[in-house]
Amino acid sequence: MNIKITRLFASILGIGLALPGLAADWQALPDKVPAPADNPPSAAKIELGKTLYFDPRLSEHGTLSCNSCHNLMAAGDDNRPNSIGMHDAHGGRSAPTVWNAAFYSVQFWDGRAATLEDQAKGPMVNPVEMGMGTLDVAIGRLQQIPGYQTQFAAAFPGESKPVTADNVAKAIAAFERTLITPNSPYDRYVKGDKAALSEQQVRGMDSFAALGCTACHSGANFSGPTLPVGTGFFMKFPTFPGSAFDAKYELVKDDGRFAVTKQEADRHLFRVPTLRNIALTAPYFHTGTVPTLDLAVRVMAKTQLDKELSDAQAADLVAFLNALSGEFPQIAMPRLPATPNMSVIPPVDPHQKKPTAG
Amino acid sequence: MNIKITRLFASILGIGLALPGLAADWQALPDKVPAPADNPPSAAKIELGKTLYFDPRLSEHGTLSCNSCHNLMAAGDDNRPNSIGMHDAHGGRSAPTVWNAAFYSVQFWDGRAATLEDQAKGPMVNPVEMGMGTLDVAIGRLQQIPGYQTQFAAAFPGESKPVTADNVAKAIAAFERTLITPNSPYDRYVKGDKAALSEQQVRGMDSFAALGCTACHSGANFSGPTLPVGTGFFMKFPTFPGSAFDAKYELVKDDGRFAVTKQEADRHLFRVPTLRNIALTAPYFHTGTVPTLDLAVRVMAKTQLDKELSDAQAADLVAFLNALSGEFPQIAMPRLPATPNMSVIPPVDPHQKKPTAG
Repeated sequence: MNIKITRLFASILGIGLALPGLAADWQALPDKVPAPADNPPSAAKIELGKTLYFDPRLSEHGTLSCNSCHNLMAAGDDNRPNSIGMHDAHGGRSAPTVWNAAFYSVQFWDGRAATLEDQAKGPMVNPVEMGMGTLDVAIGRLQQIPGYQTQFAAAFPGESKPVTADNVAKAIAAFERTLITPNSPYDRYVKGDKAALSEQQVRGMDSFAALGCTACHSGANFSGPTLPVGTGFFMKFPTFPGSAFDAKYELVKDDGRFAVTKQEADRHLFRVPTLRNIALTAPYFHTGTVPTLDLAVRVMAKTQLDKELSDAQAADLVAFLNALSGEFPQIAMPRLPATPNMSVIPPVDPHQKKPTAG
Repeated sequence: MNIKITRLFASILGIGLALPGLAADWQALPDKVPAPADNPPSAAKIELGKTLYFDPRLSEHGTLSCNSCHNLMAAGDDNRPNSIGMHDAHGGRSAPTVWNAAFYSVQFWDGRAATLEDQAKGPMVNPVEMGMGTLDVAIGRLQQIPGYQTQFAAAFPGESKPVTADNVAKAIAAFERTLITPNSPYDRYVKGDKAALSEQQVRGMDSFAALGCTACHSGANFSGPTLPVGTGFFMKFPTFPGSAFDAKYELVKDDGRFAVTKQEADRHLFRVPTLRNIALTAPYFHTGTVPTLDLAVRVMAKTQLDKELSDAQAADLVAFLNALSGEFPQIAMPRLPATPNMSVIPPVDPHQKKPTAG
């Protein structure tokens, strides 16, 4: 059944995909994420990345940090349909969680970045996100902050001018590779603790496989097979268009990966998202239009598997998905390095587009 | 000299003020803040207050927490002229620091709240800040969050319905009473470590007293004498109007405490702000229009003491004020209690004023 559906998807997509493992191939989350050869982690680099992740000076008005929309005190997103950036701009897609993002082989809903390093540079200059205009503007600010000179030097020893956009991205990515949530009830269950899941959760787990969810949501991260970095695991959403959900939840407005490649075969293709901590990241999908997990599993069954769930099936699936909420590491707040006697945030009132201070 | 200036101020204000101590009465910051009898601290209450302080669900769009404008990873403000709230609204005054706010006898620039507890309720419902409309809306959200039911019950034992606006305010205030920054170089100096200040800083300290700054910025918090809670220590700003600074920095646009009391004597009166960590909270004053500390001390000398500083005096004062930057406690990030399978943030697009999700 899984194999059949997976082949159907591959056929619809018209592309060759590495097929996910058998439904029964349940995997626990690894304890570590491998780092790329050109960005080995160090304590100094991870601490720098954490500091940058929380630093709102990387946004035009000094009001938004990475954490504003990918909140590490919560489930790594903002529990909103879409995020709100500079000048009250609303993003076009719902913010995906940063937790376990390190396990993806591509980044963003449309896979337009191959690596966490590439991804990290995007929001800083996106006008509807942090709105810095150019990376040079961002780096110009950081270079005025004495504490960052020290921190970058420690994180990138031997570099004569370490405060660069590439190093900002490397530090943030190194920090993000620590943002994983192991030891969910599901992980404990598949490692042998049969008491970790309730009976209903086990029923939901069985349904999850039997219905065919594992055709896409496979592997340790429930985001598909382990592919080489840069090789995305994408799926068409909706695969079965035409249901009432399309209009109700605005499912076909967004061209998905087509906007990146301009290939017709990529229209409405999206990266298969992780289901880890999915119970904590409502509202759902790239649209952020589906308010509850109960509705989300029904939408998925209908649009991706052409199936109607019974209330009991939906409840079982929701119960199982709640077992994917993992352990969030305790994080000590960084201290943002200061700029004594001045601020690097320009005193511009965006309503007036002129400086308010001389 | 100090006494004379202080009396002059009291005379200008036409009100009786408890006079600050002599200029030589340098005080270190206490290690603890006394708590009011009706809000004794507990570990559970402080942890709850910290969690609420960082919880953006207390804002209309779920995007802003107390920490957004009073950033504890920095100097307790946002280093902006004014803060940006819901719908890109800009606040009318610059956000004051939350660090050591517990040492004030009144809260807000105009002293309109007597206590931290009273203050905490303001921003949640302020339309240009967190924009919740009413406290009932905020409490309605919190009541849907299972983890808060547990946390409030632990913080307010014996109460049958502990999730209330009063208890939100009490918890946040209890947390804020832990937000103090002792052991600045100044504190170490006045406790006997004569090497804690540089020669220039000692010169600045002497100038600070000799010029008359201590007439207002006295006491351990450099915000005036210790007064009973609710009795504010206010000063007219500018006391000597008519300088070029008035127009350049928009110093006389804001009526200050007059807006609260409608008493003519209160026009342009503002609470005397703490100078602790002042080097870290640019831009300056309630206007947020003065970009550097060097300019700020010149504005103060001119508008409050009718004096022109030499460049050397200004540099000495700035050096001394940098000695008031204290030790910030290490804070572990709270985990925001989840709402499994749903979000309490309404799926409303404020541009369209209609729900985006059914």
